[in-house]
Amino acid sequence: MSARLKLTVAYDGTPFAGWQSQKHANTVQDQLEKAIARMAGKHLRVHGAGRTDAGVHALGQCAHVDFLDQKRSAQDWQRALNALLPATIRIMRARYVSPDFHARFSAKEKIYRYRIWAAPVLRPFEVSRCWHIAAPLDFEKIVRTSKLFVGKHDFAGFAANRGKPETDTVRSIQEVRAKKSGSLITIQFRGDGFLYKMVRLMTGAIVDCALGKAFDEQITDRLSFPHSAAAARTVAPAGGLILVRVFY
Amino acid sequence: MSARLKLTVAYDGTPFAGWQSQKHANTVQDQLEKAIARMAGKHLRVHGAGRTDAGVHALGQCAHVDFLDQKRSAQDWQRALNALLPATIRIMRARYVSPDFHARFSAKEKIYRYRIWAAPVLRPFEVSRCWHIAAPLDFEKIVRTSKLFVGKHDFAGFAANRGKPETDTVRSIQEVRAKKSGSLITIQFRGDGFLYKMVRLMTGAIVDCALGKAFDEQITDRLSFPHSAAAARTVAPAGGLILVRVFY
Repeated sequence: MSARLKLTVAYDGTPFAGWQSQKHANTVQDQLEKAIARMAGKHLRVHGAGRTDAGVHALGQCAHVDFLDQKRSAQDWQRALNALLPATIRIMRARYVSPDFHARFSAKEKIYRYRIWAAPVLRPFEVSRCWHIAAPLDFEKIVRTSKLFVGKHDFAGFAANRGKPETDTVRSIQEVRAKKSGSLITIQFRGDGFLYKMVRLMTGAIVDCALGKAFDEQITDRLSFPHSAAAARTVAPAGGLILVRVFY
Repeated sequence: MSARLKLTVAYDGTPFAGWQSQKHANTVQDQLEKAIARMAGKHLRVHGAGRTDAGVHALGQCAHVDFLDQKRSAQDWQRALNALLPATIRIMRARYVSPDFHARFSAKEKIYRYRIWAAPVLRPFEVSRCWHIAAPLDFEKIVRTSKLFVGKHDFAGFAANRGKPETDTVRSIQEVRAKKSGSLITIQFRGDGFLYKMVRLMTGAIVDCALGKAFDEQITDRLSFPHSAAAARTVAPAGGLILVRVFY
C-alpha cells in the first residue's frame, strides 16, 4: 500500500530558481526530488502547497510525496533527507498523512511575511532577505494602507500573468499585520489563497503610498475595478518575501 | 593637514578570509583599503579595533584611516565607500575624530555575541551564522557556567597562539549575559579586551559543561592555573561569533 508523507520545508531562496521544477535550473522541488530519488531508488513527484518565485524564502512550505511502503518512520525520512539536502533546504517536520491529504488542494490558509529594511544603510546580514528602502517611510501610513486589502476582493489588479490569465481571481485576506522593530518593518498577510506575485504587488502598492508616490484611492479603485487597464505597478523584490505557514 | 576618519563597519564574515589584510586573500580590510584607494587615488592603511577570524561577523567593528585633506564630509565618505564596497560590507557610520583617536589603542571595551541554534534541525537562514547543536542543551546551566568568566583573570588557558605567545594575558570581563529566544541561544561577553579565539574557547567550554561533557571546575581550574598543560579544548565555530560593539 502506498503511504503519503507530508513534509514541512524551510529554505533560503537566494541560491534557487524558485520552488517549481524546471529543466536545467536549480529549484527547491528538484533538490527535494533528487534527495528522495536517492533514498527511494526511483523518481517520485513532490507536490508543493504553492510555487514560490526565484529568491523567495520559506519557513513553512508544505509538500507531499507518495511512497510504495512505509517501512521507514517519518522521522527517519526527515533525518535521511536532511543529510542529503543542501543546508539551505531543511525538512523541519515530516509525518504520514491520509491519502486524502493534498499539499495544494487541502490548503485552507497561508501566511506570507514581507520584510523591509527602512534605514539609510542595509545591514549586511539582510542582503537578499529584505527590500532596502533608504528614503524615510511613514510606518503609521503602512499600518493604515495595509488594512485596505483585508476582506474578500477580486485581486486581478494585484496579480501578474503566468502565461495564461487565472480564471478565478477572488481571494479573501483575513488579516494584514504590520510591525516595526528598529529598522525592520514586516507586513504579514494571512489569506485563503494568493495569486501570482500578489503579495509583492500589494506590498509595492503599500510602500508607494507610504512614500507619498501613490494614494490609497488607487488601491481601493484597483480592488473595485480589477480589470481596468493597469497603470504602472510596483513589484516588491523577491528577497523580502517568506512563505511562513500553510494551514490545512 | 591630515584628517582622521573613524568608520563603524558591519560585515557578513562568510565570504571573507577574516579582517586582517593578507596576500592573495579576500579580507575585509583589503576590501576597505581597495575602496578607499579608488576614492583617494592612493593606498591608505586602515587600522581596525581588532582582527576577526575568517567567517566571524561584525555589527560594529571600528576602524580609522588618515586622509590628506577633509574636503569631503564624513557622510560623503560613507556614501561613496558603500557604493564601492560589496553589499556584505557596510559603513554604518563615519565621522572625523581627533588625531589622538586610535581604533585599536583607544578601545576601552568590546562586546562580542555568540549565537547557538539549539534544535534538532538548523533553520536555513542560520547557516554560517550559528553553531548548530542538535543534542539537548541545558540553558540554565549555560547561564550559570557563563558567570564563571566574569572578573579579572589570566585568560592564557582560553587563548590560542597566533604564532608567538602573548605576553600579557590578563583581561577583565565585565559581564556575560545568556539569553534564549525559541531555538536561539545567545551569549554576550563585554570586556576590556579579548585574546585570540578567547570568546570561541569560552563558549566551547560553556557548551561542553551544558552538554555534561565537562565540569565547571575545569573552567575555574583553567582560570586559576592558566599555564598548566592544556587539556583538549573545544573551539566554537567562527560563524556563530559577532563583534557587536567597540567602546571608546
